[in-house]
Amino acid sequence: MRRLLLMMLLLTGAAARADEGMWTLDSPPLQRIERSTGFVPSPAWLDKAMHASARLARGCSASFVSPDGLVLTNHHCVAHCVEELGSSGHDLLKEGFVARTRAEERQCPAMELNRLEQITDVTREVAEATAGLEGGDYKKARNAVQARLSSACVGPDATRVRCDVVDFYHGGQYKLYRYHRFQDVRLVFAPEQAAAFFGGDPDNFNFPRYDLDMSMVRAYEDGKPAVVRDYFGLRADGPVAGEPVFVVGHPGSTQRELPVSRLATLRDFQLPDALMRLAEYRGVLEEYRATGPEPARYAAAEIFSVENSFKALRGRFAALTDARHFQQKIDEESALRAFAQTRPEFKDARGAWDATEQAEAAYRDLYAPWSALERGNPLLTDYFAFARTLVRAAAERPKPNGERLPEFAEAGLPEVRARLFSTAPVHADFEKLRLRFALTKIRESLGADDPIVHQLLGQESPEQVAERLVAGTSLGDPAQRRALWEGGQAAIDASQDSFIRFAAALDPAARAVRKRFESEVESVEQKSAERIARVRFAFKGTDTYPDATFTLRLSYGTVQGWDEAGGAVKPITDFAGAYARATGADPFRLPESWLRARNALDLATPLNFSTTNDIIGGNSGSPVIDREGRLVGLVFDGNIHSLGGAYWYDGATNRAVALDSAAIPEALDKIYGAGTLARELRGR
Amino acid sequence: MRRLLLMMLLLTGAAARADEGMWTLDSPPLQRIERSTGFVPSPAWLDKAMHASARLARGCSASFVSPDGLVLTNHHCVAHCVEELGSSGHDLLKEGFVARTRAEERQCPAMELNRLEQITDVTREVAEATAGLEGGDYKKARNAVQARLSSACVGPDATRVRCDVVDFYHGGQYKLYRYHRFQDVRLVFAPEQAAAFFGGDPDNFNFPRYDLDMSMVRAYEDGKPAVVRDYFGLRADGPVAGEPVFVVGHPGSTQRELPVSRLATLRDFQLPDALMRLAEYRGVLEEYRATGPEPARYAAAEIFSVENSFKALRGRFAALTDARHFQQKIDEESALRAFAQTRPEFKDARGAWDATEQAEAAYRDLYAPWSALERGNPLLTDYFAFARTLVRAAAERPKPNGERLPEFAEAGLPEVRARLFSTAPVHADFEKLRLRFALTKIRESLGADDPIVHQLLGQESPEQVAERLVAGTSLGDPAQRRALWEGGQAAIDASQDSFIRFAAALDPAARAVRKRFESEVESVEQKSAERIARVRFAFKGTDTYPDATFTLRLSYGTVQGWDEAGGAVKPITDFAGAYARATGADPFRLPESWLRARNALDLATPLNFSTTNDIIGGNSGSPVIDREGRLVGLVFDGNIHSLGGAYWYDGATNRAVALDSAAIPEALDKIYGAGTLARELRGR
Repeated sequence: MRRLLLMMLLLTGAAARADEGMWTLDSPPLQRIERSTGFVPSPAWLDKAMHASARLARGCSASFVSPDGLVLTNHHCVAHCVEELGSSGHDLLKEGFVARTRAEERQCPAMELNRLEQITDVTREVAEATAGLEGGDYKKARNAVQARLSSACVGPDATRVRCDVVDFYHGGQYKLYRYHRFQDVRLVFAPEQAAAFFGGDPDNFNFPRYDLDMSMVRAYEDGKPAVVRDYFGLRADGPVAGEPVFVVGHPGSTQRELPVSRLATLRDFQLPDALMRLAEYRGVLEEYRATGPEPARYAAAEIFSVENSFKALRGRFAALTDARHFQQKIDEESALRAFAQTRPEFKDARGAWDATEQAEAAYRDLYAPWSALERGNPLLTDYFAFARTLVRAAAERPKPNGERLPEFAEAGLPEVRARLFSTAPVHADFEKLRLRFALTKIRESLGADDPIVHQLLGQESPEQVAERLVAGTSLGDPAQRRALWEGGQAAIDASQDSFIRFAAALDPAARAVRKRFESEVESVEQKSAERIARVRFAFKGTDTYPDATFTLRLSYGTVQGWDEAGGAVKPITDFAGAYARATGADPFRLPESWLRARNALDLATPLNFSTTNDIIGGNSGSPVIDREGRLVGLVFDGNIHSLGGAYWYDGATNRAVALDSAAIPEALDKIYGAGTLARELRGR
Repeated sequence: MRRLLLMMLLLTGAAARADEGMWTLDSPPLQRIERSTGFVPSPAWLDKAMHASARLARGCSASFVSPDGLVLTNHHCVAHCVEELGSSGHDLLKEGFVARTRAEERQCPAMELNRLEQITDVTREVAEATAGLEGGDYKKARNAVQARLSSACVGPDATRVRCDVVDFYHGGQYKLYRYHRFQDVRLVFAPEQAAAFFGGDPDNFNFPRYDLDMSMVRAYEDGKPAVVRDYFGLRADGPVAGEPVFVVGHPGSTQRELPVSRLATLRDFQLPDALMRLAEYRGVLEEYRATGPEPARYAAAEIFSVENSFKALRGRFAALTDARHFQQKIDEESALRAFAQTRPEFKDARGAWDATEQAEAAYRDLYAPWSALERGNPLLTDYFAFARTLVRAAAERPKPNGERLPEFAEAGLPEVRARLFSTAPVHADFEKLRLRFALTKIRESLGADDPIVHQLLGQESPEQVAERLVAGTSLGDPAQRRALWEGGQAAIDASQDSFIRFAAALDPAARAVRKRFESEVESVEQKSAERIARVRFAFKGTDTYPDATFTLRLSYGTVQGWDEAGGAVKPITDFAGAYARATGADPFRLPESWLRARNALDLATPLNFSTTNDIIGGNSGSPVIDREGRLVGLVFDGNIHSLGGAYWYDGATNRAVALDSAAIPEALDKIYGAGTLARELRGR
């Protein structure tokens, strides 16, 4: 009994502990915020927080920091753009980039910026459209209603409006998020990677830190800087230890509400598989990079991304193998299931956990073929991603909106086009390497005798297939891609491009495995999750926050260190610390610009700080603001303990890591000679 | 009650199911063998099986197959030798090697062959020497008694006699194994790797298979082929489906008796860590190999070894994450603990499981520094291994035998010297790559701020350290190593060799972490395991087999396929199957010699077969013999289901995979023109 009581407390009263939670902007936890910070955000404060924040559609957060559309985000959020704007002999990731005038600002290939404008509850519409349906039918109806709602929301101007139907609490609520869309985004400032990512992979997810992980881009409309009403003014002195601060950003995904059977699959199967794949790919990339300066340039952003994912997922794996925490998840679920047994209205929900467990078994069975043919970009190459998009778009676009594969629904096409017509260069040699690697791993996971492997390789080796396909494609040319897009099915059928033919030949098998995956796994789990969500609402009330879904969230906390192995970690670092840590050898080598500026800098200027705010991947680039709504920091990381944040928040050690606002003008002025930009940030 | 009964059955009556077990030659399970095969091995049969079998000290099994010391083992067991005997422009792994006369047989650097001569029980001697001791004292006393027993056993001729004290049942028994030692071993025959390892990594641990994974070496004594009394005559027609067969070999290590807390550490921590490390190293090696033919030659054996380990450990990880099997281990342990509670004589054993659990916690804490400084060859390089051996030998050899680090006890020195003075070439570029990789991973696991990392790297990057150390060493020259060995401490102190200085500087820290590891982990677990072993003997009786310990074991079984996904896998393949499977692209490309010989071969000749024999890594190269003691096969692999064999034997699917004896003369005669060798095997 005592144990049960304790469990109830755990699940209800203390459900959101201390500074836990990534709260949606339409239901901020005002009482909790007041309890924790002594401050109650006003409607105007919240309205500004929402409209001055933004996201990069590829998966980062950002904010407006001047009325002329200047946008602040992390360096690592625009690294792909910086790399793509480089050229042979000009490695901009290494050199950095400063636009000294607006004319020097350079458009990033395929970068899209979204600013949230409106939230509408559409739970009823979705529920009505999917009532009584299961499996494939459920999935189809859900896609159709989402396509209809999004299109109606976007209206006639898809170039400026984006609408997404998002589910919260895993189907407990559906909401329509309407964004202002910016598709002309130009690079304004990026420091050298050695400054942005000082300490490299060894220091990633660690603190104390000394990183200038910032960049600036500018939103343009009609060829001119966008004029924005809401933006965060910069507070030049940064926050003090113990000060309440708020993060407004777009956490990508958390798994705090997932059933235990899903977590077990993650722990025993999916995370280990991903980690081993990433580890090997990392080794391949490391050695490829060592073969010359051009390979090093092509691979830099990919290496960062792979190392970052590896470290993050490894932290998650470590969290899930913590038996005590996992047992707590089991106990929570047992309590919820016991509660469902007591209430007749949850009769249909009682089987939801078992249904999920069966879907997980199907997931494990389908994992290898689904990963080989469908999941993400299974062949790792830009060429294949282009080819698949073109092949499928030709088949999907003629269909009625609601019947298409959801990624080709009308509301999403502007983003599809932007990616497809991106002018970012494609490096044939690097594509070959990636295709060879992907094919080798597919053969490994399915076995040499699998029909999919026979179709992919025939009598050739992965090397030979990669060589032949890369030699036979012209999809590296954006004009070719545009012609195939505009030519529709007839152009695809007539094309002799190697990748088009390859993707077209694979498509029936890929669609078949996707269909099985959707009907046997995805729709079963979505439907079950909706049922479980209703039980949870009844059990815990709605005063909880939903799992992250790359939608705008508010988190509150204070600038604070933590105790590590008995010692206290202080929450604020300074420029002096960066110089003290530098060894002269990568990744602890400060760039020339920093070495030259050392005497000019006020070395006591704060550089990075840690806070108790509850964040996760996707929050990168989020503004940290104070009670006055002024910018005091820029989130770029979490500490190592934050990685378990995918599954739970531990207020004792989980910390967000941010660039201090005081460091920004100091660096712009004294290291980068970018006084104009510093003045724009300061509003002078 | 019914559950308990079931459990008892599980633990006692059915403890060794069907063809389960790797039995020591001094206590063969005659009744079980008769039940399973209808055959009772005679003492003479067993005596011959023991004396015609052998092991390669580096970790493989083998057998004598002619009175002139001809030894049969796998290709992959001698791949290091084949690689080392190659030279620029001569990649012997690729080309294969045939000695057409004895004069052409070439000595393998640092290869040692052991033939078991005698087994003596020394359980009482060890128990008396360690009675009442715990922790570091226990460890010290155990080392001392083992050194004393081994040395007394070896006697004056350490070049021909080797003695190891081995523990069985994790300390339940100690035995002294006396071997005839051969240190002059010469390469006689190795096919092309494309034939030996046809299907490569994709087919590894799979069946049906089509591999000529064999090689032959010859033991020499006093510069002449060794004359041996016992050897296996070759049965030219190979075994038939359903025929009883016996494997006599040296399985390396199983974990079937380990406490659950140890298995949990393997599952949650140690195996995932090893797998990620191996995966990344594999990626590094793959790309390094692609940089040219010389790197490809240096790295080939290492790549094989890494891929093989990766696949094997991945299979083990998959086995341990099987919740049903793991629960069975938990239930077995619970029953054993409950039994210990009922018997007053096991009072001291009751805490053994908890002690192990605490030692496991210490293991996790010490894992990173211990792996960085001490475990295996922590810096991955031959140079470092040489340097550490020299530095430590200088300090250890002057000490009394019983007080040395056990690897420097008198009885083990011949093997130490053979490795140290090996003439195998060391490739500086490859050493650099490996050192750089090792240092990078150590920094990753300990963090950039760890004192060990500071000592290893100072102000340099891993690349810089690797570059500097490799440039400053002459340990690649065996004469230099010999001089340092013979010069003792004075020579070490005077040496300016970069690796000697590096290893000497690291040694205090490395010894310190080793000492902690031995006293907090190893000795606690050994002592606890001894206590648990006594409980297990009382509970299950001694009619069980001990975990594998790289000692000679007998396993019995039948030539048999299994059911896979509803279909029957046939147990015997033939040469025709190899040609049918060949695609012309690596790793499914047969070598030229095979393509030329196709018409000459009898394609219906059996090539590989599968059996129910219970084997594991280390059994590679084991002879498969029939009831008459004739050679009918050569174990080279297990199927994918055999990988869980580290923890349990599942007779339904666990299969050993062997080369058929019929294939050997067929290939030697018709593909390799090695009729002389075929005749020697046939005894004509």
